[in-house]
Amino acid sequence: MLSEFEIIRRFFEQPARRPARGGRTPAGAVLGIGDDAALLRPSGDMELAVSTDLLVEGTHFRAGSAPRALGHKALAVNLSDLAAMGAAPRWATLAISLPSADEAWLREFAAGFFALAARFGVELVGGDTTRGPLCICVTIAGEVPAGLALLRGGAAPGDDIWVSGELGGAALALARPEYTEVAARLEQPEPRVELGERLRGIASAAIDVSDGLAGDLRHILERSRVGARVDYESIPRPAAFGRLGDPELEMRCVLAGGDDYELLFTAPQARRKELEALGAEIGLPLTRIGAIRLGDPSLMVFDAQGRPLPVTHGYDHFAA
Amino acid sequence: MLSEFEIIRRFFEQPARRPARGGRTPAGAVLGIGDDAALLRPSGDMELAVSTDLLVEGTHFRAGSAPRALGHKALAVNLSDLAAMGAAPRWATLAISLPSADEAWLREFAAGFFALAARFGVELVGGDTTRGPLCICVTIAGEVPAGLALLRGGAAPGDDIWVSGELGGAALALARPEYTEVAARLEQPEPRVELGERLRGIASAAIDVSDGLAGDLRHILERSRVGARVDYESIPRPAAFGRLGDPELEMRCVLAGGDDYELLFTAPQARRKELEALGAEIGLPLTRIGAIRLGDPSLMVFDAQGRPLPVTHGYDHFAA
Repeated sequence: MLSEFEIIRRFFEQPARRPARGGRTPAGAVLGIGDDAALLRPSGDMELAVSTDLLVEGTHFRAGSAPRALGHKALAVNLSDLAAMGAAPRWATLAISLPSADEAWLREFAAGFFALAARFGVELVGGDTTRGPLCICVTIAGEVPAGLALLRGGAAPGDDIWVSGELGGAALALARPEYTEVAARLEQPEPRVELGERLRGIASAAIDVSDGLAGDLRHILERSRVGARVDYESIPRPAAFGRLGDPELEMRCVLAGGDDYELLFTAPQARRKELEALGAEIGLPLTRIGAIRLGDPSLMVFDAQGRPLPVTHGYDHFAA
Repeated sequence: MLSEFEIIRRFFEQPARRPARGGRTPAGAVLGIGDDAALLRPSGDMELAVSTDLLVEGTHFRAGSAPRALGHKALAVNLSDLAAMGAAPRWATLAISLPSADEAWLREFAAGFFALAARFGVELVGGDTTRGPLCICVTIAGEVPAGLALLRGGAAPGDDIWVSGELGGAALALARPEYTEVAARLEQPEPRVELGERLRGIASAAIDVSDGLAGDLRHILERSRVGARVDYESIPRPAAFGRLGDPELEMRCVLAGGDDYELLFTAPQARRKELEALGAEIGLPLTRIGAIRLGDPSLMVFDAQGRPLPVTHGYDHFAA
């Protein structure tokens, strides 16, 4: 059987790093995997954005999930956090517990992880491998020019509320696995890293949609101490909902479905033209879905007739 | 039941940070818990040392372990990695999965974690809380002046081999729980942070003893491409072994017992006086246990009569 040292050497010593998308070639770590800690040399004029996520079998993914998709997703959810801060990804650590050292599983998991890492210039600099239930913990660090990070607390009354891509697809894939056209939204989410970096200096607040639109927007409202109005019909959603014929499930998926990893952000009305042009340039639709308003951090969602809709909560792992 | 947001707010928003031991008062994070990522501003002339460890119930600790001790240990094992690099601890993230949001358990766990964090000036800047089997992943970042980190690869023929404190106590506590005088070595390991920082510029190589002396020394030998001779009788060990009366178990604990989190390091012979004075100054015995020699990365251990002893391996989570 493979030892934990062999596992690290064979599957997690990174293939030669390719330049990131857009031709960036950041300097590598001073020291990567193989000592007690990695050594990094952050750029002097930048702030370091750091985030960690733990994915657990049975909670975040089904037993028997495809390992390549898991490798992708474990990194993608962390990249999405950096995107929501407007940070450029640099380094990651990976701690994983596994029931057994299954070589085929490890090869596929590493392939999914490193394919995404290579696309965004992420260097795997450290890790831990142990036996146990299948748990995957990725911690990621990225850089953002000092003072330019996108925070949750900057939304102001009058700002537009925007969302990238489409919402509800991941939740639909979970609820109705037969809708295979949305399966990739759940299994292979695309972190909006480029959009996040481009929103520096434009967006007034940002978050990624991991727990559902309503819950994640509430985080912005609470931090910014403002209210919001959202037009339900304006929320972009996958075409698959057209043939679902279940308005109640559709509303749950679109308003409270997690795991879409789109960016939800606010921006002054004066930036509309700029944002429309940005969406066209990077090939990612950006849609205005409502507005920030003065008042309590409450969210009102209206239907096409202007009637308020009941708003369900975002996903909470400890909710009864 | 508590929501994951309440868990974070109630148990993991850090108490006001106290100055670290020795009066250091490092600047706090630019942004801590509560956004998509933390924002840190590393010092410009320092390298960032980063390490991650995953502790899993049933693998690293018994079901029903005291939560306060677990909170301590989850951070201690990471601090020990920084100590082995000679880095000063700064920031940590904590990702945890729990079967349920047990308030008493969380309060005790947080108390153990933050008590140790306060002693070493560590700021908890981010985390993730989810439902699942009990798994704890801490990622830590510390700072070390550029070029001064203690690596595994610097041991040279003729160097002395040193170890701090005593070895084998944690393994004895695991094998014989009735030896209560060594229980704390397993449950409340003391990371040798101050020693690590003081060894900058003195030690030629260093590692922390997490998998056992033999296995961890081999990492130094492989990275440094040298051999080693160790005198078994010179290895410091807890007095409890005196009444054990089981030389075979004693040898397994001392040579291959993990979880002691002492520092194992090498240094030129010319530094002996300095190291003896350092041990006296910081109140931590430092003991010479052998020497590095030219040749293959093999480890020879000799008894008091100069006869070679069979050397068992360090702990491997995936060994058959």
